[in-house]
Amino acid sequence: MQFTEEMFARHMRPINGSAIREIFKLLARPGMISFAGGNPSNTALEPQVISGLAREALEQYGTSLLQYGATDGFMPFRESAAAFLRDSLVNCEAADILPTQGGTQAFDVLLKALVNPGDAVLCESPTFLGAIQAMREYNARLISMPTDEQGVIVEAAEALIKQHHPKLMYVIPTFQNPTGITLSLERRKALAALASKYGVVIAEDDPYRDLRYSGEALPTIQSFDEEGWVVYMSSFSKYVAPGLRVGAAAVKNPLLLRKMVIGKQSADTHSPLLNQAIVDAYLRKGLMPGHLQRICGDYARQLQAMLEGFRHFPEGTVHTVPQGGLFVWAALPEGMDAMKAFEAAVEAGVAFVPGTHFYTEGGHMNTLRLNFSMSDIPTIEKGMEKLGGVISKL
Amino acid sequence: MQFTEEMFARHMRPINGSAIREIFKLLARPGMISFAGGNPSNTALEPQVISGLAREALEQYGTSLLQYGATDGFMPFRESAAAFLRDSLVNCEAADILPTQGGTQAFDVLLKALVNPGDAVLCESPTFLGAIQAMREYNARLISMPTDEQGVIVEAAEALIKQHHPKLMYVIPTFQNPTGITLSLERRKALAALASKYGVVIAEDDPYRDLRYSGEALPTIQSFDEEGWVVYMSSFSKYVAPGLRVGAAAVKNPLLLRKMVIGKQSADTHSPLLNQAIVDAYLRKGLMPGHLQRICGDYARQLQAMLEGFRHFPEGTVHTVPQGGLFVWAALPEGMDAMKAFEAAVEAGVAFVPGTHFYTEGGHMNTLRLNFSMSDIPTIEKGMEKLGGVISKL
Repeated sequence: MQFTEEMFARHMRPINGSAIREIFKLLARPGMISFAGGNPSNTALEPQVISGLAREALEQYGTSLLQYGATDGFMPFRESAAAFLRDSLVNCEAADILPTQGGTQAFDVLLKALVNPGDAVLCESPTFLGAIQAMREYNARLISMPTDEQGVIVEAAEALIKQHHPKLMYVIPTFQNPTGITLSLERRKALAALASKYGVVIAEDDPYRDLRYSGEALPTIQSFDEEGWVVYMSSFSKYVAPGLRVGAAAVKNPLLLRKMVIGKQSADTHSPLLNQAIVDAYLRKGLMPGHLQRICGDYARQLQAMLEGFRHFPEGTVHTVPQGGLFVWAALPEGMDAMKAFEAAVEAGVAFVPGTHFYTEGGHMNTLRLNFSMSDIPTIEKGMEKLGGVISKL
Repeated sequence: MQFTEEMFARHMRPINGSAIREIFKLLARPGMISFAGGNPSNTALEPQVISGLAREALEQYGTSLLQYGATDGFMPFRESAAAFLRDSLVNCEAADILPTQGGTQAFDVLLKALVNPGDAVLCESPTFLGAIQAMREYNARLISMPTDEQGVIVEAAEALIKQHHPKLMYVIPTFQNPTGITLSLERRKALAALASKYGVVIAEDDPYRDLRYSGEALPTIQSFDEEGWVVYMSSFSKYVAPGLRVGAAAVKNPLLLRKMVIGKQSADTHSPLLNQAIVDAYLRKGLMPGHLQRICGDYARQLQAMLEGFRHFPEGTVHTVPQGGLFVWAALPEGMDAMKAFEAAVEAGVAFVPGTHFYTEGGHMNTLRLNFSMSDIPTIEKGMEKLGGVISKL
C-alpha cells in the first residue's frame, strides 16, 4: 500500500504551516536582522537563576518531583500562579488554575472540550496565526470580528453572535498579536456581558499583559464575568522563559475545568513537575517584579527605536503605537504588497511576517507585523532603515 | 445563560475518567498498599543526578535552552534518542524522531493526524485505559482484537481489518499494559506485514521494553516494516522519570511525521528544551545501562514476590507470568467480581485496578491488574496476603 495525503484526518489536510516555517528557516542566515519572531530578548533569559531554582526544587521535593503528578497540576505552582494572576486582576483561587504547556495548550484543551466539527468560533481580525491553526485543527468554522484602534467592535461582535451562534470567542485583549492594540475598558465590560447574555465562552489570551511600557493596566475581561464564561489564559513564556513551556489557565467554571483536565490527561498526562516547580519558586521568591521592571525598560526603548524607524518608510505608511507587548503592526500605502516586500527585504537581510497570515480569509496584502524584542537598538535602527529603503524602492 | 453539559463537544460528554480517578484518590489514605498505579519505584528516581544534569545543560547551552525551540525537537536529544532506539532494534535516524510529552502525546498527535470522527481503530483486548480515553476523544470507533498468551491473534486481526477498514492499530507489544504479555516474534512479523498489505498505520507503544527480567529481547514490529507504516513510540518515564515528561516517537514516513509535527505545534508549540537536554545528557553520559540493570534487578525480585503471593488467592485464580514490565494480570474464578473485591480490598488497605476498565466493551468482571514496581518486597507480601484473604472471603 502507498501512504497518501488522503489517509490524513480531513482537518489536517489543508494545514501545512509552510509560509511561516519557511520564514523561520530564512532567519538562520548569518547576519539576518529578524523582526519576524515573537521571542523574548536573549538578555531577558536567566540560565543561572533557572539552574539555581531547579537545584533547590529538586532538593526540596526530591523524588516526588520526578514521579507522575496530577493532571490538574502541581499544587504549589497552582497557588503561586493564582496569586500572580490575582495581582493581574484575575478573579481566581488555586483550585481554578490549570497548569499548561504555555498558553498554547490552554487554548488547545479548551477547543477540545468545546468544539464539534463545524461549530462557529469568533476571533479578532487580524489574530494570532497559531490560534488560527489550532481552531482549524478542530474543524471550527472561523468567524472574524472587525476591530479598530480600541480592539473588537462590540456591536459587530454581537451581530455575529446572533448570526452564527458561536460556542467560543478568542480574544487577545492586551497588546494584541499581531497589532499591539489594547481592548478598551468599556469594551472589556461589554464582551463579558455578551458572553453571559448569549452563553459564549471567551478565551481571554493575555500573555503580554505585564509587558506594559506606558499607560495604565486595565482590568481583565475575566474580572467582569460573574458566571464563569471567561477562561483566562496566561503564560510565563514572555515573562520567564518560553523554553520551559509553563502557562496557566484560570477556569472558574468547575464543569469546564474538569473537561479541560480530562482533555489534557489524554494529551500529555500532566505538565512536567520540575518546570512548574521552577516557575513556582520564581514567583515565591519575588523575582518577577524586578525582572519585569528590567525587561520592560529595555523593551520600551526598543519599541521607541522601532517607531522612530518608520521615518524611513514611504509616505502613507500607518502603524500602531502600542503601550506594550512585542509587536508593531503597519499598513503600507494601499496597493503595496508586503509579500513582495518580504522577498526583497530578506534578500537585503531583514525579515518580518507579512500581515496576510494573520487573517482567516487572507488578503490585506499591504500589512506587516514587526517584532522589536529580539533585536538591540542599533540593530533595530539599521533594520528599519534597510526595510524602509527596500519598501520605498518597490 | 446557564452553562450545561450539552455545551461540551460531543466526544467529551461520555468521558468522565471517574473510575480510575476515584481509585487514585483512595491511594492517598495513610497505610494503603497500592498495586494500582503504573509508577516507577521511588528508589528508581535520582533527583541529585537530574539536578546535576540540569545545571550542566544550562551551563552548556545557556539562554538557547530557555528560548523558543523547534516543534520537531532539540537536535542533540533527537540524536541521542535515535541512538538509544537503534539499540532497541528500532530502524531510525535523528530526523525520524519526534520528541513528545511522554508516550501519551505521541499517540495523541498520531490520532490527531489520522482520525476522522467515526474512523475505526483497532486495539488489543484488553488494552491501556489511557489509550481508550484518547481514542474516544477523537471520536474513533474502537474495535477490540482478541488476544491470547502470545498477544494479538493475527488471523482475527486480519479479519477485523477486512471488516472495518481501520486506519490505525494500537498495540503494546512488550510486557503489555495491563496483561504483562509479550507479542511473539512471528506475530510481530505478521502484524508488520498486515500493516503494509492493508495500509494500516500501527502505533507500536513500547514504554516497558527495557524493563526485562528474563527471556530474550525481541525485535520491534517497526523493524519488520519497510514502508513506514509503523510508528514506534517510546518513553523515558519508566526508565528515567515520568515527572520530566519526555518521550520520543520514531516516524519513518516523512509525510506522517510532518503532520504530527503540525499537530504538536498547535498542541504545545514544542516540548520543553531543558527536559529534552536532561534526558539527552543522561543518554550521552552512558547512565542508562547501569541504571536499567539496577532497577531491573529490584523489579525482578518484586515481581517474584508478587507471583508467589498468588498462593493466598482462591483456587482457580489464573495469572500471567510476565518476563518484564510493571504489571501482572489475574483472572479470579468465573463468577467472582473484581469490582466488589476492590471495595473490600480498599477497606482492608490494599488497592488494585479492576480489569473491566481495560476493555472497550466493559465486562470481564473477574479480572484485575496488579502493579509490583511501587512496593517493596515486604509490602508486596503483606498486600498479596491481605488481598488474597479478602478475595477468598467473597
